[in-house]
Amino acid sequence: MFRKFFISFITIVLFGFSAENLYGNVPMIGAQVIIEPGQTDAQIDSWFKLLNENGMKLCRIRMFEVYMHRADGTWDFSLFDKAFRAAEKYNIKVFAGLFPASNGNSIGGFKFPLSKEHEIKIQDYILQIVNHYRKFNSLYGWVLMNEPGTGGYVPETEYTKEKFDDWKKKQIEPPYKSLGYTLLKTFDKQKFLVYYNTWYLNWVANEIAKYDIGHEIHVNNHQIFDNLAEYDFPSWRKFLTSLGASAHPSWHFGYFDRSEYTVALSANCNIIRSGAGNLPFLITELQGGNNTYSGEKPFCPTGNEITQWLWTSLSSGAKAVIFWSLNSRSIGEEAGEWAMIDFNHKSTERLNSAMQVAKCIDKHQDIFSNIQPLNSNIHILYNRPSFWMEREVQYKSNIDDEGRQPGGIIKSAMTYYKILCENGIVPNINEFAEFDWTKSDYSGTSIILANMVSLPSYEWEDIRNFVKLGGRLFVEGITGFYDENMLSLFSTEFPLKDVFGGSLSSVNCIPGNFKINVSGNNLPGHLWKGYIQNESGNVIGSENGYITGVRNKFGKGDVIWIPSLLGMGARRTGDLQSLSNFLMKELQPSVSVCFEKRENGIFMQTAKGSKSNFSVVINKSKVKKTIKIRSPYNSNILFSDGKVKLNGNELTIDPEETVLIEWK
Amino acid sequence: MFRKFFISFITIVLFGFSAENLYGNVPMIGAQVIIEPGQTDAQIDSWFKLLNENGMKLCRIRMFEVYMHRADGTWDFSLFDKAFRAAEKYNIKVFAGLFPASNGNSIGGFKFPLSKEHEIKIQDYILQIVNHYRKFNSLYGWVLMNEPGTGGYVPETEYTKEKFDDWKKKQIEPPYKSLGYTLLKTFDKQKFLVYYNTWYLNWVANEIAKYDIGHEIHVNNHQIFDNLAEYDFPSWRKFLTSLGASAHPSWHFGYFDRSEYTVALSANCNIIRSGAGNLPFLITELQGGNNTYSGEKPFCPTGNEITQWLWTSLSSGAKAVIFWSLNSRSIGEEAGEWAMIDFNHKSTERLNSAMQVAKCIDKHQDIFSNIQPLNSNIHILYNRPSFWMEREVQYKSNIDDEGRQPGGIIKSAMTYYKILCENGIVPNINEFAEFDWTKSDYSGTSIILANMVSLPSYEWEDIRNFVKLGGRLFVEGITGFYDENMLSLFSTEFPLKDVFGGSLSSVNCIPGNFKINVSGNNLPGHLWKGYIQNESGNVIGSENGYITGVRNKFGKGDVIWIPSLLGMGARRTGDLQSLSNFLMKELQPSVSVCFEKRENGIFMQTAKGSKSNFSVVINKSKVKKTIKIRSPYNSNILFSDGKVKLNGNELTIDPEETVLIEWK
Amino acid sequence: MFRKFFISFITIVLFGFSAENLYGNVPMIGAQVIIEPGQTDAQIDSWFKLLNENGMKLCRIRMFEVYMHRADGTWDFSLFDKAFRAAEKYNIKVFAGLFPASNGNSIGGFKFPLSKEHEIKIQDYILQIVNHYRKFNSLYGWVLMNEPGTGGYVPETEYTKEKFDDWKKKQIEPPYKSLGYTLLKTFDKQKFLVYYNTWYLNWVANEIAKYDIGHEIHVNNHQIFDNLAEYDFPSWRKFLTSLGASAHPSWHFGYFDRSEYTVALSANCNIIRSGAGNLPFLITELQGGNNTYSGEKPFCPTGNEITQWLWTSLSSGAKAVIFWSLNSRSIGEEAGEWAMIDFNHKSTERLNSAMQVAKCIDKHQDIFSNIQPLNSNIHILYNRPSFWMEREVQYKSNIDDEGRQPGGIIKSAMTYYKILCENGIVPNINEFAEFDWTKSDYSGTSIILANMVSLPSYEWEDIRNFVKLGGRLFVEGITGFYDENMLSLFSTEFPLKDVFGGSLSSVNCIPGNFKINVSGNNLPGHLWKGYIQNESGNVIGSENGYITGVRNKFGKGDVIWIPSLLGMGARRTGDLQSLSNFLMKELQPSVSVCFEKRENGIFMQTAKGSKSNFSVVINKSKVKKTIKIRSPYNSNILFSDGKVKLNGNELTIDPEETVLIEWK
Repeated sequence: MFRKFFISFITIVLFGFSAENLYGNVPMIGAQVIIEPGQTDAQIDSWFKLLNENGMKLCRIRMFEVYMHRADGTWDFSLFDKAFRAAEKYNIKVFAGLFPASNGNSIGGFKFPLSKEHEIKIQDYILQIVNHYRKFNSLYGWVLMNEPGTGGYVPETEYTKEKFDDWKKKQIEPPYKSLGYTLLKTFDKQKFLVYYNTWYLNWVANEIAKYDIGHEIHVNNHQIFDNLAEYDFPSWRKFLTSLGASAHPSWHFGYFDRSEYTVALSANCNIIRSGAGNLPFLITELQGGNNTYSGEKPFCPTGNEITQWLWTSLSSGAKAVIFWSLNSRSIGEEAGEWAMIDFNHKSTERLNSAMQVAKCIDKHQDIFSNIQPLNSNIHILYNRPSFWMEREVQYKSNIDDEGRQPGGIIKSAMTYYKILCENGIVPNINEFAEFDWTKSDYSGTSIILANMVSLPSYEWEDIRNFVKLGGRLFVEGITGFYDENMLSLFSTEFPLKDVFGGSLSSVNCIPGNFKINVSGNNLPGHLWKGYIQNESGNVIGSENGYITGVRNKFGKGDVIWIPSLLGMGARRTGDLQSLSNFLMKELQPSVSVCFEKRENGIFMQTAKGSKSNFSVVINKSKVKKTIKIRSPYNSNILFSDGKVKLNGNELTIDPEETVLIEWK
Repeated sequence: MFRKFFISFITIVLFGFSAENLYGNVPMIGAQVIIEPGQTDAQIDSWFKLLNENGMKLCRIRMFEVYMHRADGTWDFSLFDKAFRAAEKYNIKVFAGLFPASNGNSIGGFKFPLSKEHEIKIQDYILQIVNHYRKFNSLYGWVLMNEPGTGGYVPETEYTKEKFDDWKKKQIEPPYKSLGYTLLKTFDKQKFLVYYNTWYLNWVANEIAKYDIGHEIHVNNHQIFDNLAEYDFPSWRKFLTSLGASAHPSWHFGYFDRSEYTVALSANCNIIRSGAGNLPFLITELQGGNNTYSGEKPFCPTGNEITQWLWTSLSSGAKAVIFWSLNSRSIGEEAGEWAMIDFNHKSTERLNSAMQVAKCIDKHQDIFSNIQPLNSNIHILYNRPSFWMEREVQYKSNIDDEGRQPGGIIKSAMTYYKILCENGIVPNINEFAEFDWTKSDYSGTSIILANMVSLPSYEWEDIRNFVKLGGRLFVEGITGFYDENMLSLFSTEFPLKDVFGGSLSSVNCIPGNFKINVSGNNLPGHLWKGYIQNESGNVIGSENGYITGVRNKFGKGDVIWIPSLLGMGARRTGDLQSLSNFLMKELQPSVSVCFEKRENGIFMQTAKGSKSNFSVVINKSKVKKTIKIRSPYNSNILFSDGKVKLNGNELTIDPEETVLIEWK
Repeated sequence: MFRKFFISFITIVLFGFSAENLYGNVPMIGAQVIIEPGQTDAQIDSWFKLLNENGMKLCRIRMFEVYMHRADGTWDFSLFDKAFRAAEKYNIKVFAGLFPASNGNSIGGFKFPLSKEHEIKIQDYILQIVNHYRKFNSLYGWVLMNEPGTGGYVPETEYTKEKFDDWKKKQIEPPYKSLGYTLLKTFDKQKFLVYYNTWYLNWVANEIAKYDIGHEIHVNNHQIFDNLAEYDFPSWRKFLTSLGASAHPSWHFGYFDRSEYTVALSANCNIIRSGAGNLPFLITELQGGNNTYSGEKPFCPTGNEITQWLWTSLSSGAKAVIFWSLNSRSIGEEAGEWAMIDFNHKSTERLNSAMQVAKCIDKHQDIFSNIQPLNSNIHILYNRPSFWMEREVQYKSNIDDEGRQPGGIIKSAMTYYKILCENGIVPNINEFAEFDWTKSDYSGTSIILANMVSLPSYEWEDIRNFVKLGGRLFVEGITGFYDENMLSLFSTEFPLKDVFGGSLSSVNCIPGNFKINVSGNNLPGHLWKGYIQNESGNVIGSENGYITGVRNKFGKGDVIWIPSLLGMGARRTGDLQSLSNFLMKELQPSVSVCFEKRENGIFMQTAKGSKSNFSVVINKSKVKKTIKIRSPYNSNILFSDGKVKLNGNELTIDPEETVLIEWK
C-alpha cells in the first residue's frame, strides 16, 4: 500500500478526463467474457479472436477474487492475465468488473460490506487487482461492483446499523413541516439506502483512485423498473466517468410482454441516460443468450431481437452495448446459459446479428458518431417518494386493484412511454432532480406526471415555475395525493391550486375499469377516478356535475389535469388509441420526424449523428405494416434485417424486422 | 391518583345505570371525528357543525396519547379540549376511544400490553385521559380500546407468557374425558385467548372506574366472521354498558360479494346483538368513505349503500350507527381516505344519505323508538370449538375443497342466513352460550346447525333438552364430527344418537359439488356427503341404499338431519332456491311478515318500534323487482330513496333502492 | 439390558433368514389397526376378527410410546398386549411400527433424534418395546420408523451438525475434478442426507438386534416422487429384510390426476421393487379410506379403486399390501378419517373389494404364488444428482416454464411410464446404481433417460458399456446438461460424444409448447429444444438446418437422442399418441403380451406366477373400451369386478373396471 493518502472527489475531477477521450464518437459493441479456471489457453484466445472477428471492440471481465486469491493468502493472476493479453492481441478493450469474494454467491455478489473486517478484505482485494491490472494496455476501466440495488432491502448488520446511525445524526430537520401534522411515517430507511448506495460506490471509487487514475469508472444498475427509487444518480456523477445498465429482459422486464421488450429497453436507456447527465451511458449488460433454469421469464433471444435491442440502445445514445455474455459460465448456477456463442464456441444467429450491426456502424461512422436521440421535449418525470409510498402502503389484493399493487406507478408511466413510441416519438424519463429547472422559458416543453402519488414540497416551486415559464404539464392519476411525509395534500391544503386550477374534491375507488369523457375522447380509466374542485381551469371533462378534467392557464404555460388512472386504464383495456388521440393533441410534440398516426406495435426512435438524422423502426406487431412517416427529409435505408420497402416516407415492414432510415 | 381503591364488577353494577338512560329510545347516527395536530380551530368547529347540520347526535374521537403526551412527560390536552368543546357547542355527544401510544401503529393499535412497564404506562394514560375528560358535558362514554381480536394470534411476550401460566394453573380438569382417549391436541392457546381478551378489557374498565363512573363503557369488535371464536361476550356484559361492531365491508366482509354486504352487515349486527344480550348494541364503526390504498377489497360506498347499511343496522336494533369517519386522517396510512366529507370538507352523496335517514328518524320518533327486530324464532347457532378445529386442521389446497379451507364453516352458516333474508325472514345468530336454554317449551323455535364440526360435551344436554321440549333442529354438514377435544364422535360413540335418530356410518369426501335428493328436493352439496346409520328416524333422503337424510321425533320436538355440506353446495352452485324450498317447508317460520316466495337478491328485515312494525326492503339484484309480501297489515311507505311503488302488499323496487314500509 | 453387545450387519446376515421364510409365496393383504387408549376390549377384538373375516392375514400397529410410557416412568403394555393377543386369536401377523414419543406430532413422527438425550430415550424405548413384544407369536416384524424422508430438509440441531461434521471429515476427494473448474456448488447437504437416513435406520436396526433377531426388519418410504433422491436403497438391503412404500394418493400423487393413480401406484411399486433388489417389497401403507380434513387432494376411494390398487400392487410383485387403515384414529388430527370400516365398525364397499381380491388369491394360490411382473426389458433410469440440481436451480415462475419447475424431471419420466403402460407394457424404473451394469450383453434391453439433467462422471462408463454391449439408449430433454458438480457438459467437453453421436450445439428455451418432426412423427415438446452437433449419428430430425434428433450406432448397440422435452410436451398437450408411435417403434419391446395399439386411459400389467402368466387390465378412461391384446396364449378370466367380456384376445371393459386374464 504505497499510496495511502485519501483521493477526494476533487482529486478525481482534477486529474480526470473527458468522457470523449475514452469513448470515441462512434459507439461500440462488446460482450462479457467469462474467465474461469478450467478453461484452456486456446479457448481464451479463441473468444477474443471471435470478438474481433465479429466487430466487437470491447469486453467485460468479472474479476472473481475467488479465482485469484489462493487459500494460502497469495494471489495468482495468471489466468486473468491470459485474458488481458488475449484482449491486447485482438484489440479488445477490457472493462474489469470488481468482484470480491462473496460467500457462496458468484452470480449477484454482495451489495454492501458485511462488517469492518469484510471492508478491510475488500480494500486488500482492490489493492491487489487494481495494482496488477492497471498496467495492462487492454484495460479500459473499472466497474465498481455488480449491479447495486437491493429491491429496497437494508441489511441488518452491525456495520450497516453504524452507518445508519452516523447518517441519521447528520440529518437536519427540514424547514417544511407538513402544516404541523405529526409525522407518523418516516422514510428514513429509504433515504438512508439512497445515501448508503452512493457512499459505498464512492468508497470503492476512492479505493481504486489510491492506485489508479485515468481509467474509466463505471457502474451498471439492474432491475431498473423496481429499483429506480434507490439511486441518486446526479451524486454518482462526481465519482463515475460513465453510467450503465444491466438490461436482461428475462430478469428485469417482468412488467412487460415479450413484444414490449424494445419499448422497455428504450425506457431503461432513457432512465440511465438521464441519470448519467453529461457523462456517457452504456448498456453494460444486455441479455445475449438463452435461459435454461435462470431468469424469471426465461427465453432465448432471436437474432432479430438482438438487432432490435442494439439499434434501440444505440439510437438512445448508448456509447456501447456489452452483451452478457460471449461465452457461458461453465459451472454452477447459470452454467451453459446466456452465451452468444453455442456450446461448440461457434457463432450463432445472435452473434451474427450483432456483427451485422457492428459492420453497419463501421461503414457509416460519420452518421453514427456522436449519436443523440432527437429531443421530443416531452418529459415523463418520476420521483422517489412516490415509489416509496406506493411500496409502504401496499396491500396485495386482486387484479381488480392492479393500480395500487406493486408496479402500479411504473406501469402507468410506461403506458405513456409506449403510446408515444408508437407515435414515433420517444419522450425523456427523468427523476425530478435530473430535469433542468433552471431555464427561463419552457415553451414547447411538456411534462407528464403519471400517477406520481407523492409531490414533495421541494418540488412545488419547480413545477410552478415550469408552468409559469411556458411549460405544459399533463397530470393524471392521483398525482400529488401525498407530500413527502405522506400528508394528504388534497384534503388539507393543496399547494399547487393556482397552477393546477383547483384542488380535488374526491378520489373514488372503482375496482376494475371505467370510462370518462375528456375533450370528446372516451378514455378508459382504472381504480381511481378523481373529481376536481375547479377554481380557475377550463373544464374539459365532467360527469353528473362532477369535473373529471380541467385545463388551467398559469403564467405562460398550462396544466392539463385528469385525476384518473388513465395509463393503467389504457394498458388494462388494451385501448391505447383513445389516450393516444388525446395526448397527441394536448402535447403537440414539435418533433421533425414521427408517424402520421399511432402505429400499434411499432417502435420508432429518431436520433441525430454527426452527419444526419436517422430513425430506427421496429415492427413488434404480429402483422406486416405499411406506415406513413411524417418527415421533411429525404429517406434512405441504412440498415435492414428483412425485406423492408421504403417508398418516400411510406415504409412497409414485416413483423420482427428492424430498419434504419437516414433523413437528409 | 386520588382514588386508588379497586372498583369491582359489583361496584360498577351497583353504581351503574340502565342503558336506556344513556341511549334514548330513538336510535342515533354519528361519525368518527379525527383529531390531529395540524388541524385549525375553524376546521374542528366546522366538523361538529356539520355533524349537527346532518342530524348527527353522536361522534367518536380517538384519544391518541401521542398527540397529547409531550416528549418532556407533560400532557397537553388543548387540541382535544377544542373538539370536546365544539361537541358541546353543537350538541354532539362524544365516545372517547382510548388509544395509548402504540409503537408506530396509529391505525390498529396494540391488543395487549407488551410488558409490565407498558401496563404501567397504559395505567398512567388512562388516569390522565379519564380524569381530564370525565368533566366534559359532551363526554358520552369510553371505548376501552380499538377493536380487540387478533386473528387467533397470541403474543409471544414474557408478559403474555406469565398471564398464560397463571391462567393455566387455575384450570380445573373437566369431568368429561372423551371416553378416556388421550388428548393429543389441546386448545389451550385458543381458550386462553378468550380469557385474555376478557381479562384485559375488564382491566381497562377497572382502570377507568378508578376515576369515572356513570359514563358508557363500550368496545367494538371487528372482522367478526374470522374473529368470532375469540370472544366471550356474555362475560363482557359484566363490565360493559354496550357492545359494538366495526363493520367495514372493504376490510371485514371478504367472504361476501359487494351485492351481499347488506346481508353481511345484517349478520354482523345479529352476532353483536346476541353477544350484547340485554345491553344495547351499536355499529361503532361503519365504513363511510372511500378506500385508496387501504382495505382488502377497496371501493367507495355509494349514497344508496350508506342508506342500505343504515336501515339494515337500525332495523337490526342498533341503538346507534357511527360512521368511520366524518373527516379523513391527514397524514400517514389511510390519509385522505374513509371520509364522509370531501377533500374540501363539504358534504357528499354519502353524508346526504345519512342525513335523509336521520331526518326520517326524527320525523317518526314514535315508530322508531325501542326498535327490536321481529323475532323469527329461527336461530343459527355457532360455537367456538368448531372454528378452532377448522383452523387447526386446515390444509390449503384448491377450490375443489373450499369447504375445508379457511371460512368453510362461516360460509356454510352465512348461506342459510342469506337464504332466509331473501325470504324476508331474518334469523338470529347466537353463540351456543348466548342462546336461552332455560325455557320449558321450544315449540315454534328452530335451530340451524350448519357444519358445526365440533359439538362439545357441555352442549349436548342443552341440545337434547331443546328438542325434547318441542324445538326443531336442522343439522347439516359434518356437524358433530368432533367433540371439544377433537375426538371423532361418530366413529366412537355419538352421544346424540337418540336425539338425531342415529349416528353416521360415513362421511365421503367428494371434491367439487354433488347433488342429493331430500324430500323431493334436488339439493346441491359440496365436498362432504354423510351417510346416516338410522335408528329411529324417518328416512327423507337416500341413494343406493345409503341414507342421506332423516327426520327424527324426539320428545316433543324433532331433528332434520342431512349430513352433507348443503350451505356450501348452494353457495358454490348459485342454486339457493332448492335449499330455500326445503328450508322454508321444514322451518315453517311463524313470522307475521315475509315474502310470498324467495326473492333473489332482495333483503328484507322487519322490526317493531314503539308504535308499529316496519320492514326494510332493499333490492341488491341487478333488475327491477316486483315482490309480493305476505303480511296481515296495511302498508305505508315511511322512507324511500327511489321510485318505489307499493300497491297493497305488492312492491316494485329498482336495483339499489331501499324502502321502509310501515305495517299498521 | 441383558444383551449389550453390538450386533453388526454380519451378525444379522448370519442369523438372518431368507425372505421366503417370512413371506409365503402367496401375497397377503392386511391393514393398519390403530390402537389407542379409550378403545374397549370388544372393539379391539372385533377389528382383528374383521381382518380375519375379510381374508386379511397381516396387520400393522403403530407402537405409540406415548400410550405405554407413564408419566412416572413406568411402562404399561396392557393395551397393546390386548391387540397382539387378539391378532394371535385371529391368526393375524403383526408388523410393529416403532414410534417413540414425538413432541406433539402423532401423525408423522420425527425423522432423526433431536439430541443425544433424545437418542438415549429412543434406545430405551426400543429396549422396552422389542423386549416385550418379541415374545408374541403374532409378531411378524419391526418397522424401523414412520416414513423416512424429509423433503430434502436437514435438521438444524447440534446433534445433526455433529453427525454432518463426522461425515464430512470422512469424505475422500473424488478423482474426477470437472476439468479443473472451481466447484461453486457443493451437494454436501444432499449427500449427507442420503448418508444420514441410512445411518439412522441402521442404528435403529442395530438397537432392535440387541434384543431380537429373526423377525422382519422393514421400513416404508412415502411421497416417493418428491423424496426419491434422498434414499440409498441398496445400502439399506444390508439391514432390512424387506422394503416398503406408503402410497396414499391424496398425499403422495400430487403430480397425477385421479384417473392416473393406478399408473402412479404402479410406478411407485416399481421404484420400491428396484430399491428392494432381492428383498421382498411391500405396499406397507395404501390409502384405504376417506379424507376429511387431511390429504392435499382429499377424496374417498371407491371400491373399484381399491380393487385397481390391489391388483396393480400385486401384479407389480408386492408380497403384501397393507391398507391405512382398518379403523380410524379416534382423536386429534385425522380422527375419523382413513378407515376401511365405517363409523359403526362395519365393513364398507372398500373393505369388501379387498376381500374379493383376497378370496381370489386364496382360490388361485398356484397362479398367484411367486408373482413377478413380466420384464419388459425397458428401463427408465433416474439418478439423484438430477433431482438435486433441479431443486437447486429452481426459480418459480409460471406455467409456461413448467418443465423447469418442481417436478419437471419426474413428470417427464412418468409420461414415458404412462405411455408404455397404455401400450400394455410396464417398464422398470431404477436408480442408476440399482441397474445391473455387469452383464456382457444388453441386446433387447432399452434404457430411457428422460430429462436426466445431470449425468455424473461415475455413470459414464456404465452408459458407454451398455450401448457397446448391445443396449438401446433413448435420450430426451436436457439429459446430461450437468455433471455431478453442475459443470455444463455440452459447453465444455461432452464425454459421451462417441456414444451419443455428437454433442449439443445449443438448447433453446421456448416457453410453452412447440413441435418437432422426428422420423416422420410430429412430436410435441416443451420449453427446451436442443440442437445436436452431429458427428457420427444418423439424422432423424432436423429443422432449418439444425439437427433435433439422431440415431447413433455404437458398438453393438445404439442411441436415439432427441434433446427436447418430449415427455412434458406430450403431457402438457395431451397428445401422448405421437410420442407413443415413435417410442413403440424405437424401443421394439419384446414382450409376449401387450396391446395391439396404445389404449388411452387403459392400464395393463402382466406378471407371471408359479403356474401361468396373468394380466391385470384396468379401464381408467371415461368410456367403455374394446381392446385387442397381442398374446400368443389362450385367455381365461380369473377375476373381474364388472361386466367385462373376453372374446379370445378381444376385451370389452367398462370404465373403472378391473379384470385379471390368465394366459395359458
